[in-house]
Amino acid sequence: MAEILKGGAAAKALNAETAERVSALRSRGVTPKLAILRVGERPDDLAYEAAAMKRCAALEIAAEQITLPNTVSQPELLAAIDALNADDSVHGVLMFRPLPKHLNEPEACERLHPAKDVDGITSGSMAKVYSGVGAGFAPCTAQAVLELLRHFDVDLSGKRVAVIGRSLVIGRPAAMLLMQANATVTLCHSRTEHLAEITRAADIVVAALGKAETIGPEHLCPGQVVVDVGIHYSDAKQRLVGDVDFDAVEPIVSAITPVPGGVGSLTTAILARHIIEAAEKSF
Amino acid sequence: MAEILKGGAAAKALNAETAERVSALRSRGVTPKLAILRVGERPDDLAYEAAAMKRCAALEIAAEQITLPNTVSQPELLAAIDALNADDSVHGVLMFRPLPKHLNEPEACERLHPAKDVDGITSGSMAKVYSGVGAGFAPCTAQAVLELLRHFDVDLSGKRVAVIGRSLVIGRPAAMLLMQANATVTLCHSRTEHLAEITRAADIVVAALGKAETIGPEHLCPGQVVVDVGIHYSDAKQRLVGDVDFDAVEPIVSAITPVPGGVGSLTTAILARHIIEAAEKSF
Repeated sequence: MAEILKGGAAAKALNAETAERVSALRSRGVTPKLAILRVGERPDDLAYEAAAMKRCAALEIAAEQITLPNTVSQPELLAAIDALNADDSVHGVLMFRPLPKHLNEPEACERLHPAKDVDGITSGSMAKVYSGVGAGFAPCTAQAVLELLRHFDVDLSGKRVAVIGRSLVIGRPAAMLLMQANATVTLCHSRTEHLAEITRAADIVVAALGKAETIGPEHLCPGQVVVDVGIHYSDAKQRLVGDVDFDAVEPIVSAITPVPGGVGSLTTAILARHIIEAAEKSF
Repeated sequence: MAEILKGGAAAKALNAETAERVSALRSRGVTPKLAILRVGERPDDLAYEAAAMKRCAALEIAAEQITLPNTVSQPELLAAIDALNADDSVHGVLMFRPLPKHLNEPEACERLHPAKDVDGITSGSMAKVYSGVGAGFAPCTAQAVLELLRHFDVDLSGKRVAVIGRSLVIGRPAAMLLMQANATVTLCHSRTEHLAEITRAADIVVAALGKAETIGPEHLCPGQVVVDVGIHYSDAKQRLVGDVDFDAVEPIVSAITPVPGGVGSLTTAILARHIIEAAEKSF
């Protein structure tokens, strides 16, 4: 029986600390504020926006929704970003992606000031994640992997971590953050040979490959800690599943995150934390 | 008996190709040009500057030396960088570091335009190395590791690579470039436990830890390719040595770079290549 690493417990602890920092900011006359910039009405965006608004309300972080139509032009989008950059009352900006195809997404991302880039979409934030210095933030989900391991006192220094998946949203930034916490990280991906051999040699396995229930007992060993970043709807099981075959793996490993209720439960708490950090740096 | 991977052979091939691209640029009326910005008279800087000037002369790349005294002020240094950014005839800038302690080195690095940052010192270049997109270049020595492996037809896709050392000049960028070439990279460092176990499981080992003759037979296996990025003067041996104990390791592995005459022999060829790439992008 593995220990179940519930994201809710980690989020609760993190939010309690964030609430104290919000109070401290408010007592100095600063109201931390998030702006959410959304183009169109993608269901995923709406769901995450609702969760972020709820999290901000609970933590007394101000939140403003800027909603642009699917037909918005690139100059109009850039003007909206410029306005948020110039607005000193806004500390963090969450811009949903992917943007509609007619827009130049890289240009839009780069337009945002890294100091307000609380979800790590600018090259400034990427340089920060890679180098450990400069302005900007890691993508919230990648940071959530670290925070979850920290909450459950999983020792990282010197430990071997296999990260599966090299996306710029999760795999790559998680690998860099884990390395900066002194883990020895192997970054695995679709072209990796002998994946099971590599994951079985690790102390910690982070699954972020984006394929439902792909990591199974053959990839894992007793004693390991497994963090599952995937989230998929399984038609067969009529419920959400992760990148890891939880039912098959849970009896083997030492600890594992559930899906749902694992890393995903921490994401808005990390977003709130980033907003507070941006606000603290703003004066 | 291992195959000896000589950097000179790789440099010769690379320079021949660069010379053709210089001709093509010149026939279009563009003279590729490097500016070398040096503060003070550090012997390492002078040696590398002489090698870079010689390489540029041989390839008919123009080169300008800007030399500032050790006592230069930060505003004077920034003004020199601004002038190089504004000068359309200059395609690449090599600024030696470390700068004297009284100067703000991060600010000076950031001042350089990433498009002219041919040795990968700006956050723009770091974001490029990390993400694979954007303006900028990898540090020349990290790129030299890749070029050397490419020259000797060492297959990277799916192969396991252990990179030892996580500096921003070599280990970290080499790891990202190797990963982008579809290798499965493990980034090892001073806090890594069971280093020998990790390196012995790799197909390719890149030693960039900066400690003389630290990687020995216990770290390596038959069949492996070893790239030694270190360079140190051994008082005991009265000659240059690498991070790898070459004499002890060469009988075991399949292929290995010598020191000197390995990765270091490629560095100015990579610098020249970056200048050409910058010039090609400039119009």
